[in-house]
Amino acid sequence: MTNPKWHLPSGRYFDREPAQRCVARELYESVTDLPIVSPHGHVDPRLFADENATFGTPTELLIIPDHYVFRMLYSQGIPLEALGIFPSPSQGEGLGPVLSGAEGVRVETDHRKIWQTFADNFYLFRGTPSGIWLAHELHVVFGVEEKLTGETAQAVYDQIEAKLATPEFRPRALFERFNIEVLCTTDAATDPLPHHQAIRDSDWKGDIRPTFRPDAVVNLLTPGWREHIDALSQVSGIVVHSYPTFIQALEQRRAFFKSMGAMATDHAAQSAYTAELSSREAEAIFQRALRGQATSDDAHRFTAHMIVESARMSIEDGLVMQFHVGSVRNHNQLLCDRFGPDKGADIPERSEFTHNLRPLLNKYGNDRRLTFIVFTLDESTCARELAPLAGHYPALRLGPPWWFHDSINGMKRYFEQVIETAGLYNTVGFNDDTRAFPSIPARHDLWRRASANWLAGLVVRGIVDVDDAHEMIVDTAYRLAKGAYKFNDQ
Amino acid sequence: MTNPKWHLPSGRYFDREPAQRCVARELYESVTDLPIVSPHGHVDPRLFADENATFGTPTELLIIPDHYVFRMLYSQGIPLEALGIFPSPSQGEGLGPVLSGAEGVRVETDHRKIWQTFADNFYLFRGTPSGIWLAHELHVVFGVEEKLTGETAQAVYDQIEAKLATPEFRPRALFERFNIEVLCTTDAATDPLPHHQAIRDSDWKGDIRPTFRPDAVVNLLTPGWREHIDALSQVSGIVVHSYPTFIQALEQRRAFFKSMGAMATDHAAQSAYTAELSSREAEAIFQRALRGQATSDDAHRFTAHMIVESARMSIEDGLVMQFHVGSVRNHNQLLCDRFGPDKGADIPERSEFTHNLRPLLNKYGNDRRLTFIVFTLDESTCARELAPLAGHYPALRLGPPWWFHDSINGMKRYFEQVIETAGLYNTVGFNDDTRAFPSIPARHDLWRRASANWLAGLVVRGIVDVDDAHEMIVDTAYRLAKGAYKFNDQ
Amino acid sequence: MTNPKWHLPSGRYFDREPAQRCVARELYESVTDLPIVSPHGHVDPRLFADENATFGTPTELLIIPDHYVFRMLYSQGIPLEALGIFPSPSQGEGLGPVLSGAEGVRVETDHRKIWQTFADNFYLFRGTPSGIWLAHELHVVFGVEEKLTGETAQAVYDQIEAKLATPEFRPRALFERFNIEVLCTTDAATDPLPHHQAIRDSDWKGDIRPTFRPDAVVNLLTPGWREHIDALSQVSGIVVHSYPTFIQALEQRRAFFKSMGAMATDHAAQSAYTAELSSREAEAIFQRALRGQATSDDAHRFTAHMIVESARMSIEDGLVMQFHVGSVRNHNQLLCDRFGPDKGADIPERSEFTHNLRPLLNKYGNDRRLTFIVFTLDESTCARELAPLAGHYPALRLGPPWWFHDSINGMKRYFEQVIETAGLYNTVGFNDDTRAFPSIPARHDLWRRASANWLAGLVVRGIVDVDDAHEMIVDTAYRLAKGAYKFNDQ
Repeated sequence: MTNPKWHLPSGRYFDREPAQRCVARELYESVTDLPIVSPHGHVDPRLFADENATFGTPTELLIIPDHYVFRMLYSQGIPLEALGIFPSPSQGEGLGPVLSGAEGVRVETDHRKIWQTFADNFYLFRGTPSGIWLAHELHVVFGVEEKLTGETAQAVYDQIEAKLATPEFRPRALFERFNIEVLCTTDAATDPLPHHQAIRDSDWKGDIRPTFRPDAVVNLLTPGWREHIDALSQVSGIVVHSYPTFIQALEQRRAFFKSMGAMATDHAAQSAYTAELSSREAEAIFQRALRGQATSDDAHRFTAHMIVESARMSIEDGLVMQFHVGSVRNHNQLLCDRFGPDKGADIPERSEFTHNLRPLLNKYGNDRRLTFIVFTLDESTCARELAPLAGHYPALRLGPPWWFHDSINGMKRYFEQVIETAGLYNTVGFNDDTRAFPSIPARHDLWRRASANWLAGLVVRGIVDVDDAHEMIVDTAYRLAKGAYKFNDQ
Repeated sequence: MTNPKWHLPSGRYFDREPAQRCVARELYESVTDLPIVSPHGHVDPRLFADENATFGTPTELLIIPDHYVFRMLYSQGIPLEALGIFPSPSQGEGLGPVLSGAEGVRVETDHRKIWQTFADNFYLFRGTPSGIWLAHELHVVFGVEEKLTGETAQAVYDQIEAKLATPEFRPRALFERFNIEVLCTTDAATDPLPHHQAIRDSDWKGDIRPTFRPDAVVNLLTPGWREHIDALSQVSGIVVHSYPTFIQALEQRRAFFKSMGAMATDHAAQSAYTAELSSREAEAIFQRALRGQATSDDAHRFTAHMIVESARMSIEDGLVMQFHVGSVRNHNQLLCDRFGPDKGADIPERSEFTHNLRPLLNKYGNDRRLTFIVFTLDESTCARELAPLAGHYPALRLGPPWWFHDSINGMKRYFEQVIETAGLYNTVGFNDDTRAFPSIPARHDLWRRASANWLAGLVVRGIVDVDDAHEMIVDTAYRLAKGAYKFNDQ
Repeated sequence: MTNPKWHLPSGRYFDREPAQRCVARELYESVTDLPIVSPHGHVDPRLFADENATFGTPTELLIIPDHYVFRMLYSQGIPLEALGIFPSPSQGEGLGPVLSGAEGVRVETDHRKIWQTFADNFYLFRGTPSGIWLAHELHVVFGVEEKLTGETAQAVYDQIEAKLATPEFRPRALFERFNIEVLCTTDAATDPLPHHQAIRDSDWKGDIRPTFRPDAVVNLLTPGWREHIDALSQVSGIVVHSYPTFIQALEQRRAFFKSMGAMATDHAAQSAYTAELSSREAEAIFQRALRGQATSDDAHRFTAHMIVESARMSIEDGLVMQFHVGSVRNHNQLLCDRFGPDKGADIPERSEFTHNLRPLLNKYGNDRRLTFIVFTLDESTCARELAPLAGHYPALRLGPPWWFHDSINGMKRYFEQVIETAGLYNTVGFNDDTRAFPSIPARHDLWRRASANWLAGLVVRGIVDVDDAHEMIVDTAYRLAKGAYKFNDQ
């Protein structure tokens, strides 16, 4: 018996009704040759700094760094240790396994064994975006024909391993093959950006840009906040001993990032709360934080204030401002203690924008120089709050469906809930938001297919005509992202 | 090259699957000749008081008064001044432009220039309800063949202007052409209803009725509340100096509205909170308000009380009670200061009904004499709270999808989320809720198409049979509205 | 003229698009012969304890005990008395009718008259799950050909009455005809389970198991809580005078239920709040409760604590733990006073899981020995909170769409909102959760059809292949429920 093969039909993810499918295909095909604009993501710039960098083993490429993948295996009782995840060096090693009811576990270091576990359980990803991206990566990027199962695991591993050893599968080569016009990374405010400098210093022409993310110095409750402030002093050359010097140092870093090609800043907060503090309050809170005495309320109010202050800076220096809210980080305390953050245990919570964003929007929302892009994990806010806000305030734009909603159904709901009220032109196209570089083409392809299918649905129901749809697909696939992040102004 | 034409296919807004489309078309066509019942809206009765009244220029008809239209243009950085919107006379003129980052702006008074700006940006309305209504108005009502673009702008303006100059396009003529059986306006409690009187005194047979809206005297924080109370005293002939005289004056006005043909009252509040005050508390709050000392909490509690009290009055006088909640009015303070209210900056917020309506429903929800119709802007409450409540309490009915949800997707979600639990017969058909008189047929047509398409989906999946669907389409298009607002009892 | 007939096409509830319909039918047919696993419901075990038990009249079978049915009739102004519902014996009789604006009502005892009222108003159920289940029961279970209308009411009554008089329509016979592999009931912690014992003692082989539901002794505000505690002392043989003896008595009862075949416990709470109390706090609250002095806050905190404590017990004794939240019970006070609880007036409210479940999940969520199944009435939590939580914590599983969401659209939304993030394998198949025994095949059939249609949609869009879909339909129809409730381990 032959092993089952991947089946990725050319019209995949389109509605099956023939008329809609036909229009969807036509729209999709009109944009397949457009380059990828990736204005927000988490790819490591180090991959491109050295022309000989490689991705490591298949397991290092696709499993160990991908919390989408290992959280699903963990949810079914597979210990993270069995997936090659090491306890965090600081203290996690001393804590012992997290999973109860399992036999004693040690960290698996045989990447083929980890791959086998992954393949044995690959059925868990049926119907999930991870399943779709992985199928695309294996079949389209790596040319694997056989479906991943327990039986095919080792043969598939062999094929990927062999490909990864060739020059065509080094990061820079894939960047070009993927037809990426520009890729933005996300970088700490204190990062001296050596890899970005190396890329600029090289003769390679790939356009990779940093994004300024000041969360670690803005959020007073960040573990090691004081050390981050010291690093900020050091890297900026401005001794941060007060709120005004803190602001100066941030402005210095923004200017540096901008000189390194940055187009945008990125801000994460649990809530969308914005509110201005008086200088006196800001200074008092900042001094308490320097003394290690900041309260949870201090941190909450300081973040709210800094979001407003960052909008002010954006109006001055022109950096696009991104705001991601709604995730309760590291929900699983035991897991975080043992393995550290970002292990698939960030859980969304209810969000509120109408009241929370009002102070910021009342101050800067009418300013055309500001582009303020909001991302939500709470879809109930899309039609109710965000679309009406974006359909009014000139500064506000809506980011694409984010994280758990970066999926076929998430995109469908986004188009259906947002566009009628906000209009397409108050949205910003697609962000892949990924660490997993080889998944980038899969993600943008899915977005383009979902866009084409949505537009085809409008066409066959007579909501827009086919001429308009042809403009709109280019907007969703390319122009909106390029315009919103000001790449057109370069 | 010829200009592109409007393309409004006869089967528009129906699903494309042929079997469903066929049933949808059959159901839709069975109700296209039924008259329009418009039990809730905001058309100015003055338009019908004088047989020679006209709509003004195309810009005055379609842009300047329509906050759906100008909010979208504003969201893309077009100053309201460029759209012919004047600052509010009281103080707005002194405040200067709201939009920052734009060049100095003056109020445009050339209606052809405003129309050109609108046409240049008409692509912003792709996929929005405004785009659909405007296409219907231009093509079906005004007979314009060419799509509205920057190129066709002036020619389209010419055609509409010429039509508006003819007797066939005066308000009364369009009322008849639109086949409107009854149209209800919304009128302040203090309104002496002179235009309704003029209509009744004329020999014109159009059925136009007032609706009693007491918000300005009920909400203690209404700007100019004291003047509204004085006006209430004057118009009712009852000196309002206490809570009991306030109630008497309201009852006097309700009786007057009823004598003028009113079938219903309308109440808006930010929250759905209902709660009874003791007479003593009500009086104490009312006296504080008369002294200009009402607090925000006073206003909140007084509104909650007055909603319950209004239900009591409805049981006594038979007026249907409508309750609209969930909008944060005038979210953009700068814009409101300069241009006044109702400028497209009302933003929905999260709502709660299960606990908030309990006091009212526990007191009057079991009374068959009361018809209490609730409207929400928070769709997450539909399946969770409102449908279960309407599926139990005899007095409660659910209003149609409102405002931002008066759209193809909004209607689809409404049918899918409400009917399984509430049943169709605890809903009240459609309200257009519009100020824009020429959009009324477009809006009712969209509702009928959405209803037909929903029902066709039930038929082709075997959920209801085609006989039942034929009854249900007449219910959604006509009978439910007529029954809920008691027009059958006339 | 002949009366209209039921029309239940074999491909009902499937999308109409031919390719999807074809795959859906194939998937559905592959599982129609699988037995029903019903791991959670409210059927009265007494029905099966005596081999000669019957269902009574058609009205006693289908109307009087079904709050889904009579709440809809009540919502349209039909008094419960007219449907044969008696006031509760304790005090309800003295209170007089609840419905105002109706003529004087007495309790109708003529079951044919009640049936006539039901039939006259059967159109109210168009498009509702009750309408679907009732059509299935009448047509498929009882073989009735004519649609239920005012005209056919008495003839239909005749047919059902005749069937109910035959041995083939006794409960045990239907249990076998329905092909039920196992049926779990829900039973109070204090229940000595005599009917389950009688079933076990009989030579009948039907597999009917109790479920341990301790709400009445856990929720300190339960009416008659003190009497429930006394009953707990008596039935367990442990005098409950303190928190430790309370825990011992519960553990004793769990052991007894397990010895009687129980696989699971069931816990209901208004909120999902979980939090541990110290032994001292638990004891203090418990003593206040024994003295009749427990506050609302005490009850809230004690329930939160007992949910955590019950998870501890489940880890020890292996009983699967079910947690149902979000219903405000007996919303209509007048109705509850007159008729008692469970009269169709339980109304959902907004729920929160991310923060509320954190204490429990941080303590026991990483334990593979625990199966903690959560049910929600607030669909906005599915994609936002529950799917991400279930996609991470090994102990957590998501229950099927519950109560008002046990419907075609509810299932569709569930699959679309849950599976992409949680994966199918963190869900537990279907529960019918019903008191209405003859509706069980209708409900499972609807779930299987909805599953098949969802999977067919994945197949025709190329999201999963047809081989995977054939595995997944067996999972949703049978294997997931059987595995989650540990029937495989028997």
